Amino acid sequence: MLRDEIMKKLDEKKKRIIEIRRYLHEHPELSFQEEQTAAYIADFYQNVPVDSVETNYGGERGIVVTIKGSKPGKTIAIRADFDALPIKEETGLSFASKNEGVMHACGHDAHTAYMLILAETLAELKDQLAGTIKVIHQPAEETPPGGAIGMIKAGVLDGVDAILGIHVMSNMKTGTIYYRSGNTQTGRAYFKIVIQGKGGHGSSPHLANDAIVAGSSFVMNLQTIVSRRINPFDPASVTIGNFDGKGSFNVIKDSVTIEGDVRTMSPETREMVETEVRTIAEGIEKMYGVKAVLEYKNDYPVLYNDPEITEQVRQALEQASIPEVEAVLETPPQPPSEDFAYYLEKVPGCFFYVGAAPETGEAYPHHHPKFEINEKSLLISAKAMAAVVASYCDGSEN
Amino acid sequence: MLRDEIMKKLDEKKKRIIEIRRYLHEHPELSFQEEQTAAYIADFYQNVPVDSVETNYGGERGIVVTIKGSKPGKTIAIRADFDALPIKEETGLSFASKNEGVMHACGHDAHTAYMLILAETLAELKDQLAGTIKVIHQPAEETPPGGAIGMIKAGVLDGVDAILGIHVMSNMKTGTIYYRSGNTQTGRAYFKIVIQGKGGHGSSPHLANDAIVAGSSFVMNLQTIVSRRINPFDPASVTIGNFDGKGSFNVIKDSVTIEGDVRTMSPETREMVETEVRTIAEGIEKMYGVKAVLEYKNDYPVLYNDPEITEQVRQALEQASIPEVEAVLETPPQPPSEDFAYYLEKVPGCFFYVGAAPETGEAYPHHHPKFEINEKSLLISAKAMAAVVASYCDGSEN
Amino acid sequence: MLRDEIMKKLDEKKKRIIEIRRYLHEHPELSFQEEQTAAYIADFYQNVPVDSVETNYGGERGIVVTIKGSKPGKTIAIRADFDALPIKEETGLSFASKNEGVMHACGHDAHTAYMLILAETLAELKDQLAGTIKVIHQPAEETPPGGAIGMIKAGVLDGVDAILGIHVMSNMKTGTIYYRSGNTQTGRAYFKIVIQGKGGHGSSPHLANDAIVAGSSFVMNLQTIVSRRINPFDPASVTIGNFDGKGSFNVIKDSVTIEGDVRTMSPETREMVETEVRTIAEGIEKMYGVKAVLEYKNDYPVLYNDPEITEQVRQALEQASIPEVEAVLETPPQPPSEDFAYYLEKVPGCFFYVGAAPETGEAYPHHHPKFEINEKSLLISAKAMAAVVASYCDGSEN
Amino acid sequence: MLRDEIMKKLDEKKKRIIEIRRYLHEHPELSFQEEQTAAYIADFYQNVPVDSVETNYGGERGIVVTIKGSKPGKTIAIRADFDALPIKEETGLSFASKNEGVMHACGHDAHTAYMLILAETLAELKDQLAGTIKVIHQPAEETPPGGAIGMIKAGVLDGVDAILGIHVMSNMKTGTIYYRSGNTQTGRAYFKIVIQGKGGHGSSPHLANDAIVAGSSFVMNLQTIVSRRINPFDPASVTIGNFDGKGSFNVIKDSVTIEGDVRTMSPETREMVETEVRTIAEGIEKMYGVKAVLEYKNDYPVLYNDPEITEQVRQALEQASIPEVEAVLETPPQPPSEDFAYYLEKVPGCFFYVGAAPETGEAYPHHHPKFEINEKSLLISAKAMAAVVASYCDGSEN
Repeated sequence: MLRDEIMKKLDEKKKRIIEIRRYLHEHPELSFQEEQTAAYIADFYQNVPVDSVETNYGGERGIVVTIKGSKPGKTIAIRADFDALPIKEETGLSFASKNEGVMHACGHDAHTAYMLILAETLAELKDQLAGTIKVIHQPAEETPPGGAIGMIKAGVLDGVDAILGIHVMSNMKTGTIYYRSGNTQTGRAYFKIVIQGKGGHGSSPHLANDAIVAGSSFVMNLQTIVSRRINPFDPASVTIGNFDGKGSFNVIKDSVTIEGDVRTMSPETREMVETEVRTIAEGIEKMYGVKAVLEYKNDYPVLYNDPEITEQVRQALEQASIPEVEAVLETPPQPPSEDFAYYLEKVPGCFFYVGAAPETGEAYPHHHPKFEINEKSLLISAKAMAAVVASYCDGSEN
Repeated sequence: MLRDEIMKKLDEKKKRIIEIRRYLHEHPELSFQEEQTAAYIADFYQNVPVDSVETNYGGERGIVVTIKGSKPGKTIAIRADFDALPIKEETGLSFASKNEGVMHACGHDAHTAYMLILAETLAELKDQLAGTIKVIHQPAEETPPGGAIGMIKAGVLDGVDAILGIHVMSNMKTGTIYYRSGNTQTGRAYFKIVIQGKGGHGSSPHLANDAIVAGSSFVMNLQTIVSRRINPFDPASVTIGNFDGKGSFNVIKDSVTIEGDVRTMSPETREMVETEVRTIAEGIEKMYGVKAVLEYKNDYPVLYNDPEITEQVRQALEQASIPEVEAVLETPPQPPSEDFAYYLEKVPGCFFYVGAAPETGEAYPHHHPKFEINEKSLLISAKAMAAVVASYCDGSEN
Repeated sequence: MLRDEIMKKLDEKKKRIIEIRRYLHEHPELSFQEEQTAAYIADFYQNVPVDSVETNYGGERGIVVTIKGSKPGKTIAIRADFDALPIKEETGLSFASKNEGVMHACGHDAHTAYMLILAETLAELKDQLAGTIKVIHQPAEETPPGGAIGMIKAGVLDGVDAILGIHVMSNMKTGTIYYRSGNTQTGRAYFKIVIQGKGGHGSSPHLANDAIVAGSSFVMNLQTIVSRRINPFDPASVTIGNFDGKGSFNVIKDSVTIEGDVRTMSPETREMVETEVRTIAEGIEKMYGVKAVLEYKNDYPVLYNDPEITEQVRQALEQASIPEVEAVLETPPQPPSEDFAYYLEKVPGCFFYVGAAPETGEAYPHHHPKFEINEKSLLISAKAMAAVVASYCDGSEN
Repeated sequence: MLRDEIMKKLDEKKKRIIEIRRYLHEHPELSFQEEQTAAYIADFYQNVPVDSVETNYGGERGIVVTIKGSKPGKTIAIRADFDALPIKEETGLSFASKNEGVMHACGHDAHTAYMLILAETLAELKDQLAGTIKVIHQPAEETPPGGAIGMIKAGVLDGVDAILGIHVMSNMKTGTIYYRSGNTQTGRAYFKIVIQGKGGHGSSPHLANDAIVAGSSFVMNLQTIVSRRINPFDPASVTIGNFDGKGSFNVIKDSVTIEGDVRTMSPETREMVETEVRTIAEGIEKMYGVKAVLEYKNDYPVLYNDPEITEQVRQALEQASIPEVEAVLETPPQPPSEDFAYYLEKVPGCFFYVGAAPETGEAYPHHHPKFEINEKSLLISAKAMAAVVASYCDGSEN
């Protein structure tokens, strides 16, 4: 049976996955600048019997690898992202980042490492494969507009029946795998509002128009979006992360710049929050006689896992009885956003989670300078994805 | 000399002033309903040698009494108001109100009492008088639109050179007289805003539009009128005295009614406050998607004492050396509003203050159920006004 | 098979269910005052072969009916509530309320009607029954503290293995049944805060302490509980339904009374909201120098359906293939609160929903004066509950 | 008569005043760094028959010049400040600043110029002088804690009977002089509040404590100090000039720094505003569970002109009939603060205003890069101060 063949091979390649991951960890690159990493990936496939390797896919550094099975079947896409973050690493690992100020603090090194070895293994076994595997090495997941959009536009999903992705999670116990059906990760929007009043001397407020007061009122009234205007059962958050009203204590500020982040779990609420942010901005204009210029950009959509495919993932994982996996569990929705959601807008699929918490010590959150994963999660990721792929594409005479 | 003649006569009539005041105090009537009081005043003049008594002046119960001197001269108007308040008296006085729930708690009984005796005295001495005295007995000072407007429209100020008025003050020491030049008492406005949202069940705020939240935001943003939008050197206050959002705890309120009171000390600030209340109401409409219906009414204007006449008042008072008067002092501006201000918009004049604090015990503020005045202030008021009138109209061969 | 026997009998009694429901609808009584209704229920059981009928159960008008099967088995409780609401009916139905101002506007008449006939039927078939059925006729569901608490304290759940309840729903299509596992209906709290400042004249705010401004600030800052202090994925709402600051427009208000309603979907969030309401009340005290007396009462808990029993309910309903039922579906969480939640804190169980939307015309919401249910839902409710009960207690030799 | 002698000499020195002023304007120095300016002043007195020149007076670059009259009399202090501002001059004058980024944009160059020539003149006429003149050349008026404090501590006011000062005003017509008795310029305070919450990810507000929301609430609630907590007839302003909450749009901000400026017109209101800022800061701590560290510093006091001396100033100015002066007028209170107020806390005196508006073109406000004065105001200032000094110290045998 194909699955068991893959598992066997993966067990043998366990050490190589770790080596690749450590190399990548040592050489992180920022979103939209992943030159070396892309070259490394392309190079890896030189002697692997895949059917094609397309580089610079979608205008950026995307790489699409096609593995055609010996028998007809479905086309399954599997995706791993490979960009890193503008964070100064503080892990003290022997293979810590050599690119000062850049760090694989989200586990994309792990994603790429397991994916390369899994792709190699699938290629080696392609005579037992039914259908086609498209391996998507995606750049720039961390930075909107993200790398997925370009690859989709370039056709990466053409003919794809289902797409699958994994994220390693430092806050989930190693040995567990989590899935969720339906809306699973938040959609996101960014907005910026520049409130233009009129400067003046602190002792004569009536001759000025105080942008800091107007800005503060904007922030307070904005709270009513989440508290009163959206469905309490449809989660959302609206955060002002930047209130730039820096000035001199005794000079009335002429303008302030405010930037915010919106998270929603449904397209309806997403739209409603945008409408309400606009409404409140217009209200501030009217109420304070200021000019409020609003820029509002929806980026990553709500990540929606297809229920049928998610059920298939769950069953495949349970039936695989992977020795390193103790439990396959349902997860509550996840607050972060993820550009895998773009693929899922086009074709059905499932994005699921592999526990990677360190065995001992604190599990630092993703994007933390001390973020670390348990390397056992590398093999588990490869095996988990293998189990799911095999459930779709087993062409062996078992 | 005319002044000394008047003073002598007033001293003799001291007891009668008190009797009249006590009678009026016992029989108070509300603004625009002063039937008995007007009849009493008209009746008083039956046997007084005045030149005319016009009743029901200006559509309400105003009475205008004209006293023509034997010689030509200026026309001086002197005004006393005679309405009472909807307050249940708690003074325990032997001559307390017999009209339950109505009380002379502002001293208009004192004003009328001194004025009647002073008018009688001036009439008795009119052969020594140069010019004309117009005694204005005005109803309805306490309740906007007030009684002054109607009397002015009916022509009470025609030919008047200057107008004078006195208020007895329970918070000023008996024996002192206070004056102020320029803007002296606040102008006033009333507004009402009805905020119409949409009711709903407490557990589903997104299906409703919460009028209480919109109303609270209105109140908070309204604070910025006084704090930021007007000149700090030009006093104003904006008070919300009524926030009627009574409802059931778990039902989202569909509408609230909010009423406010505005005080200003200059016409410019008066206008600006109205503009800004309107602006904030429109802002709330926009910001909360509610309907905000605003009714805004300026009533009594800023009371402006003519500097020249005020100086004449001050000098006349000092030169009179009234034995009961210890000091003639400048007062800071007075927070309350007063419809005497309407007269001062038309002709120059001066409204000044006669101390009337009780000799012992607490001096309850005006409009308090225990409000009392020291009856010594009655004679002082008569003499003070006499001194000023005499300074304008002495036609005696002194 | 027991189930089929019950179904057959219920089909025959269809008309009687409707008659009972109409009688109850015509004679609604308020929570804690259901004298006639309780007497009617007790009377119904006079000639029914149940094992016991306990009245005035739990200090109020609760009735507990026990039906013992011929064979040993589980003890299953089934509950129907029977109080009505202080609403003036506007349905125009021929059997509209004869008790002016009181109305069965939530469907408790339907609950009681189907339950009486179901109980009679089960009693008639008790020789085929394994285990014991406890029928709980509960008063006072609509008004906290609710009728459930007293019945639980009196021991109604002693020995009970599982409890079941149904609510007919005017907003769900007739012919559908909805269920949900886990947290299903909101928990609720009530709070009242009296803010005591100091009254004063509108023109002198510095001598007073304005309770309306402090109250408005409380409302605005309160919005941050839902917007910032709780987990966006754990729904909650905080509604101020009463802001009683009624006063005179030009008098600074000395105190306001504010009442609110809290809904939460987990015990953790429930506790957190209480903590934060207290925190903000204390903040207002400090910030405005007022006295803020807070009364906070949690009442109905979050309604938690046991996953295992809910799964059994689902399966039983599907296997029953009730002809009148088109679909058995999962429902999202329900915003209202329900005192059935108290039973579920003590024993596992499931509360589920029977569609009752009118076939034509508008489906008015529960608690609306024009609320109506489709009477087909009566038989469906009886059959649905029968199917579930039979799945636990079939003692027939099938 | 002394006054006329001085006037005659001043007329002759008119050109020199302008030259000095232009030299100083070309060489401005910042507060507490006025090395060259102080040297220039000291140097000026080298050949002037004054009785003493004390430099580095009071720890900074203050200079005190004593001129003893030939007859006994009062000791009168006259003060001119000499620091400049951190402003890049944009006047395009031929004698514009040569010290890039530093500018005499408040007229202290004019003050020093007229004062030097006046001092010289008084020294030349000291045999006609009764009493003693102390000329105070004060540094660092623009920057708290200001230069006055140190000079006072060092004894500059010992034995002084009265102190006088002039400010040239670009917004008052050249040819007018303004005075005011009592509280004349605002007192000032500075405060800084650092609100420390807890950072976090925008999608999980419940795990963080949002300092921007707490800061915005602080700003909104702060408005109630001016709107509700102080006497409307005692002006004050509270300005937040700095709201530094700069951060990343999707990261919840852990802390914000807010700085404010307070202006008051009486010691009572000054104290009350401080109390209320502290109260609101404590309220925010309580309400938002943040740490709010407040630093509050009162600096320049309310400037209080002694009524008796102000009257003497007024009379002296009117009696002098200075040909260049058209009118001597009362001014409303002035919004800015001024460290001359410190002197007036110790000895009675008067600070008055000399109109210096350009004859044509826009009159730019003080502290503006295009600020200019009409140089006619130089001679007027010298003559005005001369008139007042002479009214105190004329020892001539006239």
